[in-house]
Amino acid sequence: MSKLRFVISMSLDGYVAGPNQSLDNPLGVGGMRLHDWAFALEAWRSQHGLTGGEVNASTGVVARRLANIGATVMGRNMFGGHPGPWKADRMWNGWWGPEPPYHHPVFVLTHHARPPLVLKGTTFTFVTDGIESALAQAKRAAQGKDVTLAGGASAAQQYLDAGLVDEMDLTLAPVLLGGGERLFDNVGDELHGLSLVDVVPAPGVAHLRFAR
Amino acid sequence: MSKLRFVISMSLDGYVAGPNQSLDNPLGVGGMRLHDWAFALEAWRSQHGLTGGEVNASTGVVARRLANIGATVMGRNMFGGHPGPWKADRMWNGWWGPEPPYHHPVFVLTHHARPPLVLKGTTFTFVTDGIESALAQAKRAAQGKDVTLAGGASAAQQYLDAGLVDEMDLTLAPVLLGGGERLFDNVGDELHGLSLVDVVPAPGVAHLRFAR
Repeated sequence: MSKLRFVISMSLDGYVAGPNQSLDNPLGVGGMRLHDWAFALEAWRSQHGLTGGEVNASTGVVARRLANIGATVMGRNMFGGHPGPWKADRMWNGWWGPEPPYHHPVFVLTHHARPPLVLKGTTFTFVTDGIESALAQAKRAAQGKDVTLAGGASAAQQYLDAGLVDEMDLTLAPVLLGGGERLFDNVGDELHGLSLVDVVPAPGVAHLRFAR
Repeated sequence: MSKLRFVISMSLDGYVAGPNQSLDNPLGVGGMRLHDWAFALEAWRSQHGLTGGEVNASTGVVARRLANIGATVMGRNMFGGHPGPWKADRMWNGWWGPEPPYHHPVFVLTHHARPPLVLKGTTFTFVTDGIESALAQAKRAAQGKDVTLAGGASAAQQYLDAGLVDEMDLTLAPVLLGGGERLFDNVGDELHGLSLVDVVPAPGVAHLRFAR
């Protein structure tokens, strides 16, 4: 059965984005530090059209996270651009340029309808009727594979709080951001059956896997 | 040289104590869940006068944390009892009964002076002139061994923010508390030279060690 798998990097003080997010600084001040471990990897670089990079204990973790994914769900804030209605005269088409790294259907949670955005290898479908609808659409599109929940914090909180996350891959980055968006705000005090099933030490990070 | 070593268990959402701390519930609602991994250990139970318990991957971590410790520093809230001046008619003497588990000198940060409290194996000295004085006194008392910083959150934050912590042993418990005292509030966005040097997977937890 198709699972919803959530993958994210979090700071030691619980943030998945730093303070003062903006178009120029989509992860907020210091937020890129959460992903330094990934940027250094050959596995990440090759997925993003770059050469070089390391092979280390994180490599297998990244490979597993990317395997068997047929669709992605993300929040409007992660798709980015600006809050509120889409601007027809300068339509925001994501951070990723003409060929986003997904190469499968992506479903974007938003309050503001717009037609699907078809880019090279990836079509973004904008879903206005809630998280369960987006998940159902993504599972259909995934054709038996799993769906990944890409974030950001608000979308993740909604799926976590609703108990809809089947697996959570959390990379703990040993940095403090001191402010920004916390992953586990607004989710209460239970993990809805998720328990820690694997811990992988890797250079500069700890990878924690939760499953039912 | 004597080091200041900080040892604590933290929830996934960053809390070291749950909400609504009280005399009956010193770790707050749900806070005991942070320590279930330790209560199950033979190593912890024997230190607290109990028999039985498990030997697992946490056992070596606990042994290392307890090794070469000559003194403890803790905050008033961890020593417990009540806020404000000591009550001469019903003096609070700690949570631990006549024989606390420390068996070395303990220095308690407080704004309210009182004479040393001598219990079996452990003397509590109350320090009113700040964290640096308490650390200096503890290092002298440790006679070349290290000093452990036992918490709670406020005392830990003061030492972390001042860059006085030489090693940090953080056990990440895969639970959400949803409220309470956060470890990394009020410490800004830097770890003052501490970096992640070791990750130990153990049943139900991940042990993270930070050092300079």
